[in-house]
Amino acid sequence: MTRSSVPPPVTAVMDAAGVWLPERMAEVEEKLAAQAIGHGARLGEEAEATLAAGGKRLRPLLVLMAAGDSAGERAVRAATAVELVHMATLVHDDVLDGAPVRRGRPTVVARSGRDRALAVGDLLLSRAFAELAVAGGEAEVAELSSASVALALGELAQRHDAFDTSIGERRYLERCSLKTARLFESACRVGRLASGAPGTEELAAFGRDIGLAFQLLDDVLDVTGPQERTGKARGTDLLDGTVTLPLILAIRLDPGLGEIELRGLDQSAAEAVCDRIAETGALDQVRSRARKGIKRAKRILDSDVFTDEERELLGLIADGVVERYS
Amino acid sequence: MTRSSVPPPVTAVMDAAGVWLPERMAEVEEKLAAQAIGHGARLGEEAEATLAAGGKRLRPLLVLMAAGDSAGERAVRAATAVELVHMATLVHDDVLDGAPVRRGRPTVVARSGRDRALAVGDLLLSRAFAELAVAGGEAEVAELSSASVALALGELAQRHDAFDTSIGERRYLERCSLKTARLFESACRVGRLASGAPGTEELAAFGRDIGLAFQLLDDVLDVTGPQERTGKARGTDLLDGTVTLPLILAIRLDPGLGEIELRGLDQSAAEAVCDRIAETGALDQVRSRARKGIKRAKRILDSDVFTDEERELLGLIADGVVERYS
Repeated sequence: MTRSSVPPPVTAVMDAAGVWLPERMAEVEEKLAAQAIGHGARLGEEAEATLAAGGKRLRPLLVLMAAGDSAGERAVRAATAVELVHMATLVHDDVLDGAPVRRGRPTVVARSGRDRALAVGDLLLSRAFAELAVAGGEAEVAELSSASVALALGELAQRHDAFDTSIGERRYLERCSLKTARLFESACRVGRLASGAPGTEELAAFGRDIGLAFQLLDDVLDVTGPQERTGKARGTDLLDGTVTLPLILAIRLDPGLGEIELRGLDQSAAEAVCDRIAETGALDQVRSRARKGIKRAKRILDSDVFTDEERELLGLIADGVVERYS
Repeated sequence: MTRSSVPPPVTAVMDAAGVWLPERMAEVEEKLAAQAIGHGARLGEEAEATLAAGGKRLRPLLVLMAAGDSAGERAVRAATAVELVHMATLVHDDVLDGAPVRRGRPTVVARSGRDRALAVGDLLLSRAFAELAVAGGEAEVAELSSASVALALGELAQRHDAFDTSIGERRYLERCSLKTARLFESACRVGRLASGAPGTEELAAFGRDIGLAFQLLDDVLDVTGPQERTGKARGTDLLDGTVTLPLILAIRLDPGLGEIELRGLDQSAAEAVCDRIAETGALDQVRSRARKGIKRAKRILDSDVFTDEERELLGLIADGVVERYS
């Protein structure tokens, strides 16, 4: 997804928010674009491709909304930092998966090889912390570095569990927490830290809930496709050996699925497994859980610590996570 | 090199310093060891092996000496953070090189595969910044993240230049600056920041000089071996396509060396090239430059901003860089 085609949930939030939110998002985009320029021609190509690839920008949007109208430069820096950590993770994940495309574009690893992709990821991660290093920024550094540790632990857990179809729901949820929900939580936390307003814990819980729902629906999308929408082939998780909730629940409904040797799959066999997962009805169960998570997140917004504008904007983001996949 | 066999320069400094320096280094070792424990059994094995492998600990030692006797916890955290950044780089470099051993032990990538090594490196890098995130630590974060960016740019430059025997001295020195001297400089800077004493720029220049000398001598050692001393096979740089100053200067003296196709070398051919480099006398030229750099570094210590103890201890470290290789 490129920056010129902003996805619907983001558009809805931008339309509903005062002029401050689109203005601040534009500053974040400028800061992200400046990363490539600031580090010489050598880095430029690879990083520019990654940074320009855009994406949903959900995490920086959460930072800015958690920080609110009255926060300034510090919120913009925090939003940039969170997106840089996210990007670093994507670049390194693509190195591990040898992924050819992401968001319909060649990955850094496909363009420039493992070596450069590894260094580009390290650079983006280091730059993230540089963005936070302003007066009083140590609380944000503590928060984001902790989330970044969680991402690495999530990656380790995923690799550890690879190709193991006996993985249970609890283990899957733990991985989702480390790999996805923690950074959504962190986005909310660093945003609120930058503003100094109360409600950090409420927002953190909100971030965790929508982050988990986001991951559940992402895992459904890997099974359903279509590729034009996801920017990657169906069944990519299966091919990588990543056992997700759709498969875990499908195995309960169709135990024969648990006997399939994931290591041996090719693309067409993976798509056939996707079809078989879909036939069990497991996908509706996963979607239903995600929707429950979104409802729970929206109930958190009833708290007195939030303003009406915050309730509206954060509610739109929560809805957007579901709508994208409906 | 394991922690039980502390290398000579470190021993000399420890003997000369008051009890404060060994005590604080012990705290750094504890903090480094705690990284593995703090992140679960999954990480434990790989990280513990990396952390326990020890090494020279020159960088944290520089941090502590730059901070001085009166600095406390903040200096220990900064020293730990600098070593964590260094370790993250080693782990990621080994992924790229597919290096089987480092310091005579199996590398993380050899033990656990690329995937986990990549995640372990990300984790160590993220933990580095977490260590610095204490009250007022944002200046240290800014400094170390900038050094960490330099390391990634150095890695990109090295990969870009790989197997290119037309690389000149200037380009080589630029790479050394990014890959080695910058982190030595940063060690001095974050140490001094933690103490608040004057002399940061003098110490930064001192760090750059000894860092560059360190890299020059390391590149000599790759040509001379022996493996028992370096913990890796002779000619590893040649096999990786890394053109270093010994080869650059040797080509001037024996232009035929510039015609060798590095991509085609095997271990015994690489050792033969090492012998041919040594025969040109280029190694003495490189050693002589390194010694000049050390002299320049020690002249910086004449400045009034340093105490007699600082002059003595930092001078011992500077000498130690040369002695290790003499």
